[in-house]
Amino acid sequence: MDILGNYRLILGSGSPRRKSILKEAGIPHTVKVIEVDEVYSADMHPSEVPSFLALKKSRAHLLTDGRDILLTADSVVIKDGLILEKPANYNQAFSMLTNLSGSIHEVTTAFCLRNLERYEIESITSRVWFNEISDQEKEYYINNFQPYDKAGGYGIQEWIGHVKISKIDGSYLNIVGLPMEAVYKALNKLIKSLNANI
Amino acid sequence: MDILGNYRLILGSGSPRRKSILKEAGIPHTVKVIEVDEVYSADMHPSEVPSFLALKKSRAHLLTDGRDILLTADSVVIKDGLILEKPANYNQAFSMLTNLSGSIHEVTTAFCLRNLERYEIESITSRVWFNEISDQEKEYYINNFQPYDKAGGYGIQEWIGHVKISKIDGSYLNIVGLPMEAVYKALNKLIKSLNANI
Repeated sequence: MDILGNYRLILGSGSPRRKSILKEAGIPHTVKVIEVDEVYSADMHPSEVPSFLALKKSRAHLLTDGRDILLTADSVVIKDGLILEKPANYNQAFSMLTNLSGSIHEVTTAFCLRNLERYEIESITSRVWFNEISDQEKEYYINNFQPYDKAGGYGIQEWIGHVKISKIDGSYLNIVGLPMEAVYKALNKLIKSLNANI
Repeated sequence: MDILGNYRLILGSGSPRRKSILKEAGIPHTVKVIEVDEVYSADMHPSEVPSFLALKKSRAHLLTDGRDILLTADSVVIKDGLILEKPANYNQAFSMLTNLSGSIHEVTTAFCLRNLERYEIESITSRVWFNEISDQEKEYYINNFQPYDKAGGYGIQEWIGHVKISKIDGSYLNIVGLPMEAVYKALNKLIKSLNANI
């Protein structure tokens, strides 16, 4: 399915999961990452942070060609109303898994689609149920999977997701890092409207 | 995580998805498939069919070694109270996707864990939300992915799942074909009780 036609998609994210999701969705793209300071106001509601950061990442790029469409995204893990960032070390990763064990948390991913003329931001939240994780299992996971690049310190598509996540309510790919079905829909809509304007 | 200890897992299923799920869960296993006639009574409730067939598949095996644990499973896709089987040809696959487009359906997977002394069956149901699928998209999917070995004529882990499934309520891996988190829990429990009996 060639949904891009004459347009070109630029993925403004260095996440290998996002790249892989786009690939599985059959959407050709190039990757161009511009690092931004992922700082947000302390009084911002956690669920608003991904939209804010997806837009911030988008604005870091300069678009000059009308055929370019830029996709940026940001994901956060929220437990008890607080954002769990990427764990900086083993102990933080261990604490995060302890926090998530035997309980429910939320994952919010926002994405921004932008071209020369306009941008659209969408934010999607899914809920995730974790079974109890033993200390031995936490240790095994952290040592073998090094989840230091992952919000909340885990990847649903990895070992721990396979053996410990009993249920989700929402988009699976949103939890992985990119709600592809929503991106696909928004991309189709954007290209349709761009083509209608020609 | 070596959860098997002195026990050995036999996967009694030829499904490459189930094999891959077990592998990602880090559980060593061998595959031994004995084909059974997947016939069930017409008056059986659709959601009971997977349990019935998982047990039937299990009973086809002769277990002789106390260290062997056999895992069998069966998945069905249920729409409006009716089971959608594997599509036999292009037209059936097209009709099934038309049936699933823009609506909600259920996937029930049951698994049976069995050793010399006992067996346990568990059945898990998840709900799946499909966005509208255009005829062009159905054609693209069927021609490129040949979903003739898949209950309901689709795989959530394939292109169509990426671009068209907006939401699930339940276990993602259950929809793929094996609710790994439940298998992991049941396997741990079985091995613990076997070890306690020695």
